[in-house]
Amino acid sequence: MKEIETTREIIRISHDSVERKEDTIVTEYAVTVKLNAQEFVTMVCSPEYIEDMVIGYLASEGIIKSYNDIKDIWMQEKDGFVHVTTDKTNPYYQNFQNKRYITSCCGMSRQGFVFVNDALTAKKMKEIKITLTPNECFSLMNELQESATVFKQTGGVHSAALCDKNGIILSRMDIGRHNALDKIYGYSLKNGISMDGKIIVFTGRISSEILLKVAKIGCEMILSKSAPTEFALQSAEELGITTVGFIRNEAMNIYTCPDRIIFS
Amino acid sequence: MKEIETTREIIRISHDSVERKEDTIVTEYAVTVKLNAQEFVTMVCSPEYIEDMVIGYLASEGIIKSYNDIKDIWMQEKDGFVHVTTDKTNPYYQNFQNKRYITSCCGMSRQGFVFVNDALTAKKMKEIKITLTPNECFSLMNELQESATVFKQTGGVHSAALCDKNGIILSRMDIGRHNALDKIYGYSLKNGISMDGKIIVFTGRISSEILLKVAKIGCEMILSKSAPTEFALQSAEELGITTVGFIRNEAMNIYTCPDRIIFS
Repeated sequence: MKEIETTREIIRISHDSVERKEDTIVTEYAVTVKLNAQEFVTMVCSPEYIEDMVIGYLASEGIIKSYNDIKDIWMQEKDGFVHVTTDKTNPYYQNFQNKRYITSCCGMSRQGFVFVNDALTAKKMKEIKITLTPNECFSLMNELQESATVFKQTGGVHSAALCDKNGIILSRMDIGRHNALDKIYGYSLKNGISMDGKIIVFTGRISSEILLKVAKIGCEMILSKSAPTEFALQSAEELGITTVGFIRNEAMNIYTCPDRIIFS
Repeated sequence: MKEIETTREIIRISHDSVERKEDTIVTEYAVTVKLNAQEFVTMVCSPEYIEDMVIGYLASEGIIKSYNDIKDIWMQEKDGFVHVTTDKTNPYYQNFQNKRYITSCCGMSRQGFVFVNDALTAKKMKEIKITLTPNECFSLMNELQESATVFKQTGGVHSAALCDKNGIILSRMDIGRHNALDKIYGYSLKNGISMDGKIIVFTGRISSEILLKVAKIGCEMILSKSAPTEFALQSAEELGITTVGFIRNEAMNIYTCPDRIIFS
């Protein structure tokens, strides 16, 4: 497998100095998923935890329902293919891949979904199984950022972590924000990690795609360093997910479902 | 058309203060392109300059070769559709949409392309038609960042600008990095703007997708505030494009084709 970062010689200009120096750069890896021998999707990602990412992606697209639906998964590293066989793919879902979800009233669904598969696989969080204080939110974000060594060296990746009240359980980074979440989802499915009371902590923006990934994984809260979009917040309200953004310098914004943030 | 930003009430926590306040949030808009009455792609974007974005996207995918290839384009705003008719679509390109570009030797093409259409539409920059001093690079980045009012208010968008030595000609922002470039490309095609001696100035990371968009637009230089990936830099070397990244605080990194940066 390729490395997730490499070095190259660059010219660094800073004020009046010009120097040649070695710099660390993130790599990109293109992997094509063949599902039951048919080309399904090509994903561009950071080259680690590829199988987990593919499992997470197939589950979030509704193609598989559990890890056991996969009969076989293997990576043909030389050519950048991941081969997946399953006898349980849901043809209903495959028909809807990338199909728009159009309600009768308007192009943008009132329920906060763009794609049909999202509406079918996103889970609604009906209960409050975890609460955090603002200080716990700040600590989790600090822990994620301190663990993000590839970002510190290259500035080129996003990090995501699955957490509970006690800290990070699992963290993944990727050049693609959604890939980092798919890697967490795939690992969790494979290892049967319960999502009860779990939180996603994330460095990237909360677009609707990211919010829906969180709902598909089954977490009831997302904490991010960055901004959300309005459509993501509408989906979060609909799905009962707490969104907290702009966690920086001991400050943060609570956007939706504030009952999971408590002031002890 | 929806607005590109909206307001909502949030809870702002900063150190020991907790207040309800109104905040500005970016919107997301899903638009589905119907090409000759067939569903072609769904793009999630900031709701402005949508037709330009669709034109730029179709050109960068090789579906059209010039603006004149479009017979008709109109937006069905209520349902979020853009209808495009053309009698010149190249079936050869449609066959290759999202198809991997596999060379005989390895999965990752030595030429720095992942998708077939990229290899067919990216332009090779054989000449040096523009040079910049480091100070000119710093000024262009400052100009872009000062013009990025939506980013300042929401933190949720990326900005891109088409520039020459004298400053910004055209700038666009979008929640999707690649959409900002498609909006620039579409506008330029529609208005017959020559790309000779033009530069793209950009706030986002330089992934291979972004680098290839720059090559398709026909610019010979990209300046960014953020980091590049190794695969983008390999493509840039192959295509003769100058990449400059991490332009911050009067400092920057030159990664490829440094001959376009001069020290006067």
